[in-house]
Amino acid sequence: MTILFNNPAEFAEDQFEGFLDLYSDRLRGVPGGAVAHRSGEPQVAVIVGGGSGHYPAFCGLVGPGFATGAVVGNVFTSPSAAQVYSVAKAAHQGRGVILSFGNYAGDNMNFGIAADRLRKEGIDVRIVVVTDDIASATEEEKRRGIAGDFTVFKVMGAAAAAGLDLDGVERAGRAANSATRTLGVAFSGCTMPGAEHPLFTVPEGHLGLGLGIHGEPGIRDEPLPTAEQLAHTLTTAVLEAAPANAGKRVTAIVNGLGTTKYEELFLLWKTISANLRDAGLEIIEPEVGEIVTSLDMGGCSLTLMWLDDELETFWRADAYAPGYRKQAAPIANLVASAGGEESAEAAVIPDATEAARALGTVALAGLESIARTLHTNEVRLGEIDAVAGDGDHGRGMVKGIDAALKAGAAAHAADAGVAWILTSAGQAWAEFAGGTSGVLWGAALEGAGSALTDSREAYTPTDFVAAADGFATAITDLGRATIGDKTLVDALLPFVEALREQVAAGTDFASAWSTAAAVATERAAATAALSPKLGRARPLAEKSVGTPDAGATSLALIVTDLGSL
Amino acid sequence: MTILFNNPAEFAEDQFEGFLDLYSDRLRGVPGGAVAHRSGEPQVAVIVGGGSGHYPAFCGLVGPGFATGAVVGNVFTSPSAAQVYSVAKAAHQGRGVILSFGNYAGDNMNFGIAADRLRKEGIDVRIVVVTDDIASATEEEKRRGIAGDFTVFKVMGAAAAAGLDLDGVERAGRAANSATRTLGVAFSGCTMPGAEHPLFTVPEGHLGLGLGIHGEPGIRDEPLPTAEQLAHTLTTAVLEAAPANAGKRVTAIVNGLGTTKYEELFLLWKTISANLRDAGLEIIEPEVGEIVTSLDMGGCSLTLMWLDDELETFWRADAYAPGYRKQAAPIANLVASAGGEESAEAAVIPDATEAARALGTVALAGLESIARTLHTNEVRLGEIDAVAGDGDHGRGMVKGIDAALKAGAAAHAADAGVAWILTSAGQAWAEFAGGTSGVLWGAALEGAGSALTDSREAYTPTDFVAAADGFATAITDLGRATIGDKTLVDALLPFVEALREQVAAGTDFASAWSTAAAVATERAAATAALSPKLGRARPLAEKSVGTPDAGATSLALIVTDLGSL
Repeated sequence: MTILFNNPAEFAEDQFEGFLDLYSDRLRGVPGGAVAHRSGEPQVAVIVGGGSGHYPAFCGLVGPGFATGAVVGNVFTSPSAAQVYSVAKAAHQGRGVILSFGNYAGDNMNFGIAADRLRKEGIDVRIVVVTDDIASATEEEKRRGIAGDFTVFKVMGAAAAAGLDLDGVERAGRAANSATRTLGVAFSGCTMPGAEHPLFTVPEGHLGLGLGIHGEPGIRDEPLPTAEQLAHTLTTAVLEAAPANAGKRVTAIVNGLGTTKYEELFLLWKTISANLRDAGLEIIEPEVGEIVTSLDMGGCSLTLMWLDDELETFWRADAYAPGYRKQAAPIANLVASAGGEESAEAAVIPDATEAARALGTVALAGLESIARTLHTNEVRLGEIDAVAGDGDHGRGMVKGIDAALKAGAAAHAADAGVAWILTSAGQAWAEFAGGTSGVLWGAALEGAGSALTDSREAYTPTDFVAAADGFATAITDLGRATIGDKTLVDALLPFVEALREQVAAGTDFASAWSTAAAVATERAAATAALSPKLGRARPLAEKSVGTPDAGATSLALIVTDLGSL
Repeated sequence: MTILFNNPAEFAEDQFEGFLDLYSDRLRGVPGGAVAHRSGEPQVAVIVGGGSGHYPAFCGLVGPGFATGAVVGNVFTSPSAAQVYSVAKAAHQGRGVILSFGNYAGDNMNFGIAADRLRKEGIDVRIVVVTDDIASATEEEKRRGIAGDFTVFKVMGAAAAAGLDLDGVERAGRAANSATRTLGVAFSGCTMPGAEHPLFTVPEGHLGLGLGIHGEPGIRDEPLPTAEQLAHTLTTAVLEAAPANAGKRVTAIVNGLGTTKYEELFLLWKTISANLRDAGLEIIEPEVGEIVTSLDMGGCSLTLMWLDDELETFWRADAYAPGYRKQAAPIANLVASAGGEESAEAAVIPDATEAARALGTVALAGLESIARTLHTNEVRLGEIDAVAGDGDHGRGMVKGIDAALKAGAAAHAADAGVAWILTSAGQAWAEFAGGTSGVLWGAALEGAGSALTDSREAYTPTDFVAAADGFATAITDLGRATIGDKTLVDALLPFVEALREQVAAGTDFASAWSTAAAVATERAAATAALSPKLGRARPLAEKSVGTPDAGATSLALIVTDLGSL
């Protein structure tokens, strides 16, 4: 609920004083609202408005590239005609005035009265009403304006900043409104400052489909769906309400009404964006966040605006308002480097001795062996993982080794030594496998490579033990798992230890490896046998030390198959 | 509560996919988090992080001028060491890595483990822990990091973008942390995705002073104060905790935790900013909004960072992250024009006939008379208004006429005619009186001026009736009040009608005016007599047609005194 207030009757004015103090560098208060400081040539004045309680609508949208002024009414109450008149007069720059607002009775009346008076005084005034809410009426001209206020205001603000005349800005605004559709849902009502109870409620465990931003009746109440289901509902309904002649480019707004937070909106966007692309649409610079709120109301909406060339230009244009900033320039200068420092320097392959290059060929064969093992066992590893984890271990390992093999092969083809081949492979594994086990395997391959170096004139079994140790240390350094934690460490450390002992005892390396692999296989089986007891209740924190069970199994399979090289 | 989710266990990863899709133009996902696309020369990598659920912290702060990368843990859970390591490796540009995070046990452990591993691989890593929460411990090094994360990360991001080396960025970050203090309050707990109950609660009607952003114990519970009282509490406590050698420049963050909305935060800022200025502080580019949230938690915090020249430079620097954009350039180009079109063209005074200029002298005398009347009756008008309104009518009228007289005198001194003198006076009245009655009086004076024009060779009593009509029409056009609504219209329309009748009947103008003024006085008295019945319960909407009662009285007093001219 709305908690902070002094005198509830003066909430709107009080908070507005704080707002004006905060943004005095870019706008100023005038009786009835706020007017942007001027920049450049005189332009058409785009005046937006409505009641308070919807920040950043409306005063948060005043600034270069956006609204020239905003009229600020009391909470959820239309501003008076006098306020509209006052703001319009203060904002007028001699090129005419657009008044734009949602299609509510009070706003229609008061903005209309102000327009009449302004015209009597010789100021050319046009009214552009926003009517995007498809749940509010069948006929377009009877629909209310909700989050679509934003797209319509934005287009007109950009059109005015681009120097269009009054006819041009009005035309662009009407085009934007015709191309904009919104559907919203509410999860809970909002509480006016000082009120004991919410202005309206939504039945527990339900959402109000199409419920208005002041609690206006919607279409119906429905049981709460999952985020994915809600995303489907919104996307389907808004796409079905597409305007005639809708093209293939859209922008989208996923708007939070107050207590539905960013993370929830991002979650919706994941599905909505996929749905829109599945519908063959290109998505241009979408916005996800709080655009038109209703105090502390729970809920959200999806707005689509179908774009032609002109609307796209105005939608993309820069804007700098307190509640919304858009700036094209720095993005254009960015370089989407695929792999940080490493990929930027990937071309510089360290010098390698002949022995290092020869061992590199063996390492590449090893990567090929691992790839075969993991592809063969992908399903099985997933099944083991599904008992205690999320069942994606096999898939993740396959993605990792495929990327690693590709990177290793490229390094080998460029005459790299064993260390660089393993380092390249490790980096690619971490990058593409995803998840914690990918990071661990990536770091482990890098650790093995570092232990070997590319500078030796010859490599002995002792060096291979050091490599296995480097591999294991990277994993224990990062994962901090120990034996008994039911991770790949259960198999890995005994493997390394067995290899070390065998080599120290003078066993030939192939036999030493086979013995160690057998140890790993036995330990992995022991760990896997524990898995059904874990069930699904494992705490999340525990999962961060690698996917349990399946990790040990995959290691055992890999080292076993590697033994045949 | 958190309403939207699919599988609660995968909430953090799911929503992060939506986030990455949305901002793929400026950052990319890597295992464990997000890394900014590169721009320009290699720079020190500033890696921030912590659990999810705090958007825009942490992934929303990745971008040019801000963090190079963010590590994204599960909701309210530290990311794993492997995640930190992975993000740092991907973000590293060869100039070293800063790891920065709030001072929580899990973060200290996991970032620390990752730092050790990165150092083993030859990467220079520094750790800068944020410790701004003065409620969490007495000793600075034991304090938790909350919204002060933002100032510390921002300074380091700007320092890195400015090309400082690792020592320099680390030093700037430590300086920022030493200069930053925060105190927060909670009004209600937050609900984890999928949970039935909030993670913690605050007793109904109370706030938790110093309660942590994950519900960590605070100082004590207190009954809910007014916004003003809370602002005092926060400002006083944070100022008392100022660092040694604190200077006179600060920046401030008023942060909303989730369900405490922008309007409430602006209301707090109104008092906080006044308190800070009263304390002799200069406030540099404050931020009010959602900076470090906690899902749907109710609450807010005040952060101050005391600035020296270096911190001020880095605080002011541009940044372009998904959740925070700062851009100095367009603001610097703005012109804070004081009065829109009119003031910009104020120098161009329309031509006026001799008769118009002569009548202008009378108009100026009229304004002087009105000023005397209103100053004399300021207190009385306020008292009448206090019965049914907010008691500021007298004050508003005095502010209006003072500004109007000044503007009218300036126009007169510049040889303007009556129309321009009244127009200038009206614009100034509206601008400076504030409130609806100021707008109405301003429009009315303009209306009278327009009716007269500056182009007549002579003015007759019929013209003066037209001016009175123009005055009244502006008010009824905008206010839409009619007789009986208990506004100044109750006295105004009968006055104009009586004046019209008297002039039509051939009465000399002075007598006609006196008769009309007597009518106005009688009607105003009748309206004022109704006022106690209204009480304080007048709906807000009704107030928008001018402050009741007192408006009629002031009009009657003014026209009576004007009769003696």
